[in-house]
Amino acid sequence: MSQNDRRTRRRGEELINAIHAAVLEEVLEVGVGRLTMEGIGRRAATARTTLYRRWPDPIAVLLDALYHAHPVEEPTPGADDLRGDLIRSLQLMVKWTLSPAGRAVAAILTDPKGIEQVSDELVEQVFAQRGGTFTSTVLRHYAERGHFPASRITPVVADIGEALVVKRLLDGAPPTDADLADIVDQAILPAIGLADRLT
Amino acid sequence: MSQNDRRTRRRGEELINAIHAAVLEEVLEVGVGRLTMEGIGRRAATARTTLYRRWPDPIAVLLDALYHAHPVEEPTPGADDLRGDLIRSLQLMVKWTLSPAGRAVAAILTDPKGIEQVSDELVEQVFAQRGGTFTSTVLRHYAERGHFPASRITPVVADIGEALVVKRLLDGAPPTDADLADIVDQAILPAIGLADRLT
Repeated sequence: MSQNDRRTRRRGEELINAIHAAVLEEVLEVGVGRLTMEGIGRRAATARTTLYRRWPDPIAVLLDALYHAHPVEEPTPGADDLRGDLIRSLQLMVKWTLSPAGRAVAAILTDPKGIEQVSDELVEQVFAQRGGTFTSTVLRHYAERGHFPASRITPVVADIGEALVVKRLLDGAPPTDADLADIVDQAILPAIGLADRLT
Repeated sequence: MSQNDRRTRRRGEELINAIHAAVLEEVLEVGVGRLTMEGIGRRAATARTTLYRRWPDPIAVLLDALYHAHPVEEPTPGADDLRGDLIRSLQLMVKWTLSPAGRAVAAILTDPKGIEQVSDELVEQVFAQRGGTFTSTVLRHYAERGHFPASRITPVVADIGEALVVKRLLDGAPPTDADLADIVDQAILPAIGLADRLT
């Protein structure tokens, strides 16, 4: 069964990367509902037994791949640039939505069966483990430094940037950098009480 | 060809309603890319010639159906209740997303082919003709009455409510009335500069 692995001698990280890439391609093609170890194994040219050694089921492979591919924005070290860091975190999101992982998440979230099967797991095992929504890490960083009260970072406020970016994508017009700056200036900064100071 | 129409003697509005219902069901089942006059006619039990008398192609039938089914929020007559009217406009949106027209729009916007084929037409011939985004009509109403400057109603600000509702729906948790109140209090009102006065 592990003929393929022996033949190509892929080990450790290289093999895992190939499996992660395979499950993202597979979910885009067949959907969450029809994800199987066999399909993932075929695409990664690896044996099902190899997969079962590490993951209990195909959904676990998918969530592991999404976790590893999920970016977290970094506040610019030493800088005092909340507005710039918020814009950069949304730029990171836009870039991620165009990546295999981002397209896989979009496919899952727009598939009623996908939402039913892995929505909670996506939030708990991927997004929450990777800093929550895009902008959350930056918002917490600046709130901790006293730029605004941390109590302003409610679930709604932490979602504003992502929600407006997703809306633009669904409207068929991926946001430009100018659009992202408008989202920060006109929606996120006012929601944390900083509109008048910064615009 | 118009045997069916003669047999059931459906006329005028009744026939149009049946065709509107048929095209919404049909697009949910086959997608925008495979919408045909034949499919719509079969489902509405009416002749293709009857359809062509009124609409040039199946997309025109779809857009007409969506236009007629699209609700527009009404500011409460004589009331001075911006916050309440915003919450009610988002409640109207949530109700609409569960209707055949709302589910058809969701299917179109989450289908890459659907976005490509009718995204612009949806915005121009349906949403714009029906007051723009949910909350836009209420925002304009209160801006005209001097509650806040009309210049605050930018495309981003007019989109905040819809974007956050759509995000909740994609996250698999349709918003409750309390969630809608949080969206209004924590995101929309701050964006028009009214956070401190109203919360």
